[in-house]
This record gives sequence, C-alpha cells and structure tokens, in this order.
Amino acid sequence: MADEKCVLVGQSGGPTAAINSSLAGVIAAGILEGARVEGMRYGIQGFLDGKHVRLDEAFASRVDLDLLRNTPASWLGSCRYKLPEPAADQAVYQRLFNRFEEVGASAVLYIGGNDSMDTIAKLAAYGSQTGSDIRFIGVPKTIDNDLVGTDHTPGYGSAARFVATAMNELAYDADVYNLKSVSFVEIMGRDAGWLTASCALALVEPDLVLLPEVPLEEDRLIERIAEALEHKNTVMVGVSEGVRTPDGTLICERATPGAGTDEFGHLAMLSGASRYLAALTKQRLGCKTRAIELSTLQRCASYVASRVDLNEAYDLGHAAVEAAFAGETGKMCAVERVSDSPYEAHTKLVDVASVANQVRNVPSEWISADGMGVGEELIAYMRPLVGELPAQLAQLD
Amino acid sequence: MADEKCVLVGQSGGPTAAINSSLAGVIAAGILEGARVEGMRYGIQGFLDGKHVRLDEAFASRVDLDLLRNTPASWLGSCRYKLPEPAADQAVYQRLFNRFEEVGASAVLYIGGNDSMDTIAKLAAYGSQTGSDIRFIGVPKTIDNDLVGTDHTPGYGSAARFVATAMNELAYDADVYNLKSVSFVEIMGRDAGWLTASCALALVEPDLVLLPEVPLEEDRLIERIAEALEHKNTVMVGVSEGVRTPDGTLICERATPGAGTDEFGHLAMLSGASRYLAALTKQRLGCKTRAIELSTLQRCASYVASRVDLNEAYDLGHAAVEAAFAGETGKMCAVERVSDSPYEAHTKLVDVASVANQVRNVPSEWISADGMGVGEELIAYMRPLVGELPAQLAQLD
Repeated sequence: MADEKCVLVGQSGGPTAAINSSLAGVIAAGILEGARVEGMRYGIQGFLDGKHVRLDEAFASRVDLDLLRNTPASWLGSCRYKLPEPAADQAVYQRLFNRFEEVGASAVLYIGGNDSMDTIAKLAAYGSQTGSDIRFIGVPKTIDNDLVGTDHTPGYGSAARFVATAMNELAYDADVYNLKSVSFVEIMGRDAGWLTASCALALVEPDLVLLPEVPLEEDRLIERIAEALEHKNTVMVGVSEGVRTPDGTLICERATPGAGTDEFGHLAMLSGASRYLAALTKQRLGCKTRAIELSTLQRCASYVASRVDLNEAYDLGHAAVEAAFAGETGKMCAVERVSDSPYEAHTKLVDVASVANQVRNVPSEWISADGMGVGEELIAYMRPLVGELPAQLAQLD
Repeated sequence: MADEKCVLVGQSGGPTAAINSSLAGVIAAGILEGARVEGMRYGIQGFLDGKHVRLDEAFASRVDLDLLRNTPASWLGSCRYKLPEPAADQAVYQRLFNRFEEVGASAVLYIGGNDSMDTIAKLAAYGSQTGSDIRFIGVPKTIDNDLVGTDHTPGYGSAARFVATAMNELAYDADVYNLKSVSFVEIMGRDAGWLTASCALALVEPDLVLLPEVPLEEDRLIERIAEALEHKNTVMVGVSEGVRTPDGTLICERATPGAGTDEFGHLAMLSGASRYLAALTKQRLGCKTRAIELSTLQRCASYVASRVDLNEAYDLGHAAVEAAFAGETGKMCAVERVSDSPYEAHTKLVDVASVANQVRNVPSEWISADGMGVGEELIAYMRPLVGELPAQLAQLD
C-alpha cells in the first residue's frame, strides 16, 4: 500500500449547506490525482469504530458529484468528538494511526470548524513526532464564521443568505396589519455575531441587530424600540442566541417576564433570547410582539445557498488535496480576500495550529456606535459572500 | 361617477406568498377593462377609516406588476375584522356603502379566507336588499386550504412547497450524527391538516404526520416512534399546531412534561405542540429530541413559492374582475380541478354564501389507517399544487 495515493476525508461538527461541496472538491481532486478516496463515516469517531466508505467509486459519475455539491448537511455523517492531548492519552492516537494504515491513507483531510482544526493540528503534531509520512490538512467549515486565519468560512455565506432572505420575508409578513408590533428573530452563533449580522442585508433593513459581542442593556433596548415605534408600525430586531446582559448572563437562560400567554395561546413561561425579549417588550411597551427562532433551518437551506459559498467550499476541498500531495501537512486551506467589489479572493495555506481553539469575533469598529447595529464595513464584507437576494417589491409606506 | 368603471379591491386575513399575485391579476384585468382600480388600505377597516390608494396608477408599469406577482405578504395591508350581521348593526353598512360611493366603486373585490368570504356574502346581501348595483366578488386566499367550494386555495401551494422543502432539509440536518433522535416539526393550521400534510412531500419522507383531524393518543405515538427507532437513527414527525388529545385538549396548551433543559440549555417549561411532544418523547424514550416551529416563515417564503400557485392566484384575481363586469355578484372565484396528472384546472364561480363560515377538513379516507400518515390520494392531490422540489442527493444509508 505504501506508494499508493490515498486520500482519507472526514466531516465534523454541525451540518451546513456547503460542507458537501468541500467533500465534492476533495473527491474530484483525488480522482484527478489518481488517488483512492476514502471517507470516514461519522467523523473520527465513526472511523475509529471501523466505518469508512469508498468515495471515488460512490461518486464516479460527474452527475452525482455535481448533486453532492448542492446537497446540504454532512453526506458522510458527522461527530462531535475532541481528541485528547497526546500526552494524556496516547492510545487513541495509536488506534487512529493504525486505522490510517489499515486504509492506506497518505493524506488525511478533515472538514469542520474549530474542533476539527484542533484535531488536524494534534494529528499532524503526533504524526511528525512519530515519523509518520501521512499529511494532515484541514478544510474550514462553519456557519459561525468564527475561525481565525481565513477571511471567512464555507457555510457562512449560505446560512447568511438564508438569514437575510428570511429576515426580509418576516418583515413583509409582520407589516400587514395597521398596528404596532415588534418581531425578534433569533439567529445562531453563541460567541460570534457574524451570522446574526447578516440579517442586516435584508432589503427591508432590520431596525436593531443585537450581537453577542455587545452586552445588552435592556432599558436602552426598550428605549430604542419605543423611539422606532414612534414613526413606524413594524420594528424588526435580529438577535443572536448568545446575547448577554452586562453581568454576563445569557439572555436565553433568563426566565421570561410575565406569565401570560403569547399570541398563539402558548404559555409564556418560555426561554430563549427572542422569547425573553418579546415577553419583556410586551410587558414594558404593551404592544404586540413576536419571537421567531430560525432554528436549524438556517444551517441547511440549500434552496437559498450562496453560489460564491458553494464554489469556494469546493475550491478549498480541491486545494486541500493538492496541498497534501505537494507535501504540505499541519495546514488549513484558507480564503484570502483581494477585493470586495468586484469580489476577488484566492485560497492560501495557514498553519492549522494557529487556527485551532481561537474564536474570531466581529471587530468592534464594524459594529455601529450604539452597539445595536451593523457598520458599513461589515455590510461590504458580507455582501459578496451572500450574493444577490431574491428580488422583491418594496412595501407601501 | 355613475357610469365610470371602478374596481375597489381589498386584502384581508393573514399574509401569504400568493395574495399579491391575486392583487396583480385584479389590477391587470381592471386596466384591461378600462377601469379605475382602487385599493383598500388595511382591508375594510382601513377603508372605513378613509384609507385607499389608486392601484392602476401605482402599477401602470408592467415591470412593477410582475414584481407584485412575486412579492409575499399583503401589499395593501390587511385586517382581521368581521362585519356584524346587518340586522345587528346597519350603521357600519351605511358607512361602507357611502365610502363605496365616494370612491365610485362599481365592483368590490375582497381577497381572503373564510372571514373575507363572509364579508363579501354580507355585503352582497345588503347591496341587493338596498338596490345597490355594486357587484361583490370574493377571491379565495389561505395557506390553510380550508375553504369549501374550491379544489384548493391560493397561498396553499406555496406554503406547502416551503413546508415540504424545509421538512426535507431538516431531515438531512437531523441525520448527520450516529445517534437516535426524534424531530418534531410544527406546522400551521389550527383546524385543518392540509398544510401539515404537505410535509409528506419531502424527498426524505417523514415517519409520522399528525393532523388536527385525528385525536392523538400519546401512548400509541410513543410506541410508533420507538418502533421506528429500532431500524433507523432519525425519526421525523410533522405535527400540526392544532393537534388535540382524545378529550379535546389542544396539545400546544399542555404544560411540558419534565422540568429539565432542552438541547440548547433553554428552560423546558415551554409549550407549543412540537415542544410538548419533544419533551414527552425525551421523557419516555430517553433519546435526543428537537422541536422546530416553522412559524411565520411558512406564510411568506416567496423564494420557494409554487409557480402553479402564483399563476392560479393571478388568474383568480383576473377572473373576479371579469365576473364582476359580466354582472355577477355574491360569488367567489374558485378552482375546479380536471385532472391530477397532467395537472389541469380552470376557474369557476360559486355562491359565496355557501362558502362563508365553513371549514373543509382533510377527508378521513385520505389519512392513513393508523391516523399518523398521509394516504396516496392526498399525495396525488397535493403534488401538482406544490410542483417539483429543489433536487437533492439522497443521504447515505
């Protein structure tokens, strides 16, 4: 097996609309390199349990590979598994490297977020310590867009396109009655506000955008909502699930004020950031409020996927295979942006150890001065990743 | 003003992806007939308050009219206002007919659901009693698809297309980990299960579909879920917000069993049909569960709107104007289906008084024998209204 080329690839962490496009890029590049392409089922964890699948055969047809580029979620299955430190548990590394040998892997690629880059960093370090000639390359993926070392991450643009589209349609929906109402739309991203910020791309701009980077002062929020309601009927607020009060408490974990029932007659003893703020606003301002969680819909909405996102995801998977066969190891394939408009970017390699276990937040200078909106630089940054939204007519008024 | 042609049109009830397409049909037909077209702002209620807008001028450009066809929500604004019985309150009728005269309306059209057809029926009856020569025509619209007298209602096909698409992508999303999980996807429709049934069109078919037409026996549901989990990882359940227990209690109003926290760390003292069932299933079976409310997203998702739906909505608006100028009054424009495959249908007129205040439920012979699924006739009924879903690759396994 020694001189046979074999790419082993896994997917890890939460699903996205673009992670399979990266997988398609890996398979296509592997086939081009004349390599066998094996896939880990359910990530490192499933692979340790003996689960893998021959991908160059499963996707020998170009039609199937093109379908895979547009298929949401993780075709190989995923896991949430953090490798221990090699010093703490060598056994799992020995088992893994035995498995790598068993399938004859000459390159191991892992598509995922922070934990996946940590996995690649640890494997590369262990491999170099033990004299293994297997190459380890990471391919970024997360809707949170919170990896350092790359301009952005695949999966983000498509999730952001769903969020912006949904925000727009929810604004249309909320505005049909001649009454005052406030809608809170809850968006994923516990620590970083990139995805929440994307709601600002809606054609009907949201009035307020609450990011986890900015501690939320409730009184100030209510004030701002009251001001907005003075000159319009419908106030739209995008809110991150990770918003915290100044004392560090997650809003989504606070008990909901009041014990009435919401508009659907549901009991209002609910939690979650949007439900909490909807109940608070209703209690304080007495107007109609609504809480909408975009939930897991925002991860896998391939029908509004961003073309740029899917293409870049594919390119990064492709580049990872090329890097491995060019002798690179311990790297992550990243995106470097050349310009916003026209959008231009290329792939590059960064040291994966410098990426793992770091979180990239929205910089404070990209957040509006009052902390409840998105600055123009951030809009310019996001727009090319999301692409054009479905065209719609502006509402009357 | 007497011999000038003037169409006055209003929109009422909840927004949909197709109601503006009906409005576009009304405007186009009005212009074609050489009529002035006036729109009520915020339905009958806003109109009574003096609010109306000149539509043939606002949409003189064909480009704007085409945009309107694809714009979700209610461009004119809406209201939820039920006209009193004429016997109980003549004054409001006198005010309304004065307003009709003020704008010079020769035809009054109302686009909406059950209450809107009730409005048209009452206005037509009052008009004929008082010798008015204004014609009154209803144009159906409701995502609930629960109007009698028509094969289906505009708005339904598009909402159903969103529901089926979302159900599919949620199934992809839920299936990435190698563990047992049950997802409950909550769909609108308090009394009729048409929209909930549409989740059965997902390419990855849901395992169970719970309609409001069938009382839910919780023990039997848990049994069925346990059976399904024996041979698969991921169980998907579509559940109507209107599901009731055999004693008639709405499930969404029951307190959620257990007092733990859900997967996101939220307090579990929640309600809502999906949250209740997710908590119940977790308590009984100990597996991972998830509750997802499609919420108002399902009403206005124009990016997955059904082409057939938008076209039919337009045609019904168009036909309503023609009917009015042909001398008809007290009618609703309806759809009569000729065949399922190839799909063929045409518009017809029905007596609006026979439509108002009735609910059309899913017939029991279209529900599977065990009461937790959708029969083939219902699939054949829904499929042409929804159209092809975005193509995707089947998951491994």
